[in-house]
Amino acid sequence: MITALKLTFLLLGIGFCYRLQHSDTNEETRAAQPSKYGSLWPLPQKVQISEVSFKLSRASFQIIDAEQSFADPTCRLLQDAYRRYYEYIFVGAQTHKSSSNKRAGRAELTELQVRITSPDTECGGYPEVTSDESYELSVDQPFAVLKAPKVWGALRGLETFSQLVYEDEYGAKSINSTVISDFPRFRHRGILLDSSRHFLPLKVILANLETMAMNKFNVFHWHIVDDQSFPYMSQTFPQLSKQGAYHPYTHVYTPTDVKIVIEFARLRGIRVIPEYDTPGHTQSWGKGQKDLLTPCYSGSEPSGTFGPVNPILNTTYDFMKRFFTETSSVFPDAYIHLGGDEVDFTCWKSNPDIQKFMVQQGFGDDYKKLESYYIQRLLDIVTTTKKGYMIWQEVFDNGVTLKPDTVVHVWIGGESNEEMGKVTGAGYTTILSAPWYLDYISYAQDWQRYYKVEPLNFNGTEAQKKLVIGGEACLWGEYVDATNLTPRLWPRASAVAERLWSAMNVTDTTDAFNRLSVHRCRMVERGIPAQPLFSSYCPSEYKGI
Amino acid sequence: MITALKLTFLLLGIGFCYRLQHSDTNEETRAAQPSKYGSLWPLPQKVQISEVSFKLSRASFQIIDAEQSFADPTCRLLQDAYRRYYEYIFVGAQTHKSSSNKRAGRAELTELQVRITSPDTECGGYPEVTSDESYELSVDQPFAVLKAPKVWGALRGLETFSQLVYEDEYGAKSINSTVISDFPRFRHRGILLDSSRHFLPLKVILANLETMAMNKFNVFHWHIVDDQSFPYMSQTFPQLSKQGAYHPYTHVYTPTDVKIVIEFARLRGIRVIPEYDTPGHTQSWGKGQKDLLTPCYSGSEPSGTFGPVNPILNTTYDFMKRFFTETSSVFPDAYIHLGGDEVDFTCWKSNPDIQKFMVQQGFGDDYKKLESYYIQRLLDIVTTTKKGYMIWQEVFDNGVTLKPDTVVHVWIGGESNEEMGKVTGAGYTTILSAPWYLDYISYAQDWQRYYKVEPLNFNGTEAQKKLVIGGEACLWGEYVDATNLTPRLWPRASAVAERLWSAMNVTDTTDAFNRLSVHRCRMVERGIPAQPLFSSYCPSEYKGI
Repeated sequence: MITALKLTFLLLGIGFCYRLQHSDTNEETRAAQPSKYGSLWPLPQKVQISEVSFKLSRASFQIIDAEQSFADPTCRLLQDAYRRYYEYIFVGAQTHKSSSNKRAGRAELTELQVRITSPDTECGGYPEVTSDESYELSVDQPFAVLKAPKVWGALRGLETFSQLVYEDEYGAKSINSTVISDFPRFRHRGILLDSSRHFLPLKVILANLETMAMNKFNVFHWHIVDDQSFPYMSQTFPQLSKQGAYHPYTHVYTPTDVKIVIEFARLRGIRVIPEYDTPGHTQSWGKGQKDLLTPCYSGSEPSGTFGPVNPILNTTYDFMKRFFTETSSVFPDAYIHLGGDEVDFTCWKSNPDIQKFMVQQGFGDDYKKLESYYIQRLLDIVTTTKKGYMIWQEVFDNGVTLKPDTVVHVWIGGESNEEMGKVTGAGYTTILSAPWYLDYISYAQDWQRYYKVEPLNFNGTEAQKKLVIGGEACLWGEYVDATNLTPRLWPRASAVAERLWSAMNVTDTTDAFNRLSVHRCRMVERGIPAQPLFSSYCPSEYKGI
Repeated sequence: MITALKLTFLLLGIGFCYRLQHSDTNEETRAAQPSKYGSLWPLPQKVQISEVSFKLSRASFQIIDAEQSFADPTCRLLQDAYRRYYEYIFVGAQTHKSSSNKRAGRAELTELQVRITSPDTECGGYPEVTSDESYELSVDQPFAVLKAPKVWGALRGLETFSQLVYEDEYGAKSINSTVISDFPRFRHRGILLDSSRHFLPLKVILANLETMAMNKFNVFHWHIVDDQSFPYMSQTFPQLSKQGAYHPYTHVYTPTDVKIVIEFARLRGIRVIPEYDTPGHTQSWGKGQKDLLTPCYSGSEPSGTFGPVNPILNTTYDFMKRFFTETSSVFPDAYIHLGGDEVDFTCWKSNPDIQKFMVQQGFGDDYKKLESYYIQRLLDIVTTTKKGYMIWQEVFDNGVTLKPDTVVHVWIGGESNEEMGKVTGAGYTTILSAPWYLDYISYAQDWQRYYKVEPLNFNGTEAQKKLVIGGEACLWGEYVDATNLTPRLWPRASAVAERLWSAMNVTDTTDAFNRLSVHRCRMVERGIPAQPLFSSYCPSEYKGI
């Protein structure tokens, strides 16, 4: 059945076939115009920018702890952030010149004082799904003040402050008198990267964490292993990466690498949620762990190929217990993603031992029951590690018993609104990814399609809507590696960032285009090859190739 | 009307909407297998690779002029190429290890002797459409010999030689005994880059010329100016870039820049054909050249906007005469591309002076006649500069009288086969771009679609087919700049490269996949961020972000 949505895609398809050589329709040739919100991205909840502007001196401007702040110089997270944003402000920020502030003798803004208002600053902790990211920013004489209950809000406010700075026509760093009060609409704002289809060098992951912070994302969903390769170096089961990685030395994440990723992310207020997807998507696991996968049969003989994790052996659960005990201590986040999507039953069906087990258990021919049996035992194991879990929607659809704090991840397109209704109707927390599969590329400004998504646009009660804690942009790795990941992700993911952070009524795509055009040039100036939205230029183009 | 071709696109579109999360169909998870042709790309016309292998020593291997060569050490083009390929061979070339040559005591290949067999080596000249690019390569004891009538063939043969070198399992540079006889199927094998929609820094253009040489392309079609910006710094009319570039200092090509591009390309056997597209696509010209464009009217008053070049003023032709006299001396190639596509008549129709002119000339309401009038005068002007010209297909379609050596550029999709028949039926030389608009991106392995094109697949006599001299892959610039151009172009354009170089019967996409997978890793090793074909890895991943 072709739904209305799909028909729209078809019609768009026709449009493309008939396209002119050059995109000269009026709509598209529009150049970015100044927005009254400057280049703020994502747009804060409340913003007032006045005409009064101040200068900032590279020599004397400081970002410091306010006297009343509960954070002190031992808060490394803030000290690192001060240095980082000082650098962004005085090295980059050439993008948005304003000619409206020519008058001489402007006052100088000498300080940004950062005040953490809660005695528990959370400086040494990890960000969580419940972390407070709110902040208030006042830019005025004699100094600017950034107030936040926790360090997480301070990080968001520093990014906002840096986005307010521009160069006047003489190149002088300037900022307008501004009052901002801000907090995220959704608590879970993630990016999924896939390091199995292609190995992603550490440098690429870190650069994208950096860019996530520029867009106020707060979750790195690390789809770390899959069928194609197992780059996670396990200390309990070193054979997994030794045999399962593309290469055991050059294409693995060592324990140190993983620690670096987690700390780099923490310093930017980003959670790292690893995904260990089972029982499907596990071909690479089988290379280093004997008897973990189901032997497939061709007639009465093993065919030599293997299917999903073998759910009928106790050794499977012993392995899982030890494996998830390790990963739960390696990854500090309270959640782990257990996958559970796309289990192919063909191999299970072919295996006589499995057939016997089905009879014993009274599952009949319903292999979904076998899948649920496996998942149930896995969830019980993970529960003993004190972790919460996220799972792809099939696990919910198949009726597995879930802990009340389970996060169900909705990814199947076409009927995701109905699914959101079902999942929240059953009382589960959910996040949305279905409309945000950024690996599906298409011609022209597809960021607008991502931008127009409204996650709460499903039939449900207020209580149900509250169970939607956010979403994730997913960049699956089949066609993506270090050569093209970063420009493909940005600024397309920025559209998702604003949808998840800003108020529900921030839907003006024209204003979004104006702000995002400058925001993308800012990312370029900060060294990130974020691709263009449309014909235009940045004052300072990307320096790489 | 929805043609069969378009219907196919539609069906593909549906396919995408229903896609699974992970691309696990058997067809697609296939990993690259070794090809009997190694990693040669594009495939030479005749190749015999034996099992016998030799070692190459970094310390002593030399690429030198053969004693009998008509080229001598003053041939800078060859000397530069020797150095370049020595570097490629000993720095890169980790991509394709072979485990079939383990035996100790292999003989050493100590030299590649390059012999130019024609007294007129063309070393100091520029490549032309008639240039001889053929070569013969023999890799055997005690040395390898590369024979070519001209330096152009030597350049192609050096690339081929470098593609034959691989590392054995101990990292020793190795090459198998090989005999190759090679020449291009088509004489014109081009890439169009657009430096108007986005300015392309010199570094990006040079890197892509380098990559073109790796793929045996021989034409850089430089779509240098257009509506959006005029980055070409004219010495006769400096106001054109001063007013028409995105920025008069940071976003222009100086005369020196242009010379660098031309020489860099020449040293790689690549022609540089600039395109100055008129009378449409000229908004940026109007900024620096008063009265060049047609004033549009709103009712009886000028609206303040401008349309195509004003075809009724003598000053227009004076300008064009001086402008094309300059560019014809700046660009050494025998051809210049004059554009002529997509002329919008709305503005011409609104202008009372144009209306009067139409009556005087007896054109009636047929503005195509006015367009042809302009183009005809322009062609006459360019003819006096002794240049041949290329034009987009509309100029032919509109019945303009063309010189016999005109190259008609077919770009309009859907009925390009019919168009090829018409153009060649009228006796004109033609090149094909319609199926190779690489700015149109889509999910998955679209290189296969480009690869499957057969340029001679139209109804026509043998004589007509001979008029098809090649094609160009076009990467228009609306959505492309320094941040994403290179990975978006490569290896998708490589598919076009093989179609235009290799024999007509080289159509096995499986073998192509196997060779291209390694070729793309080779480009990565040479510092080019060529994107992946599918889930896989390169021994040495891209070092950038």
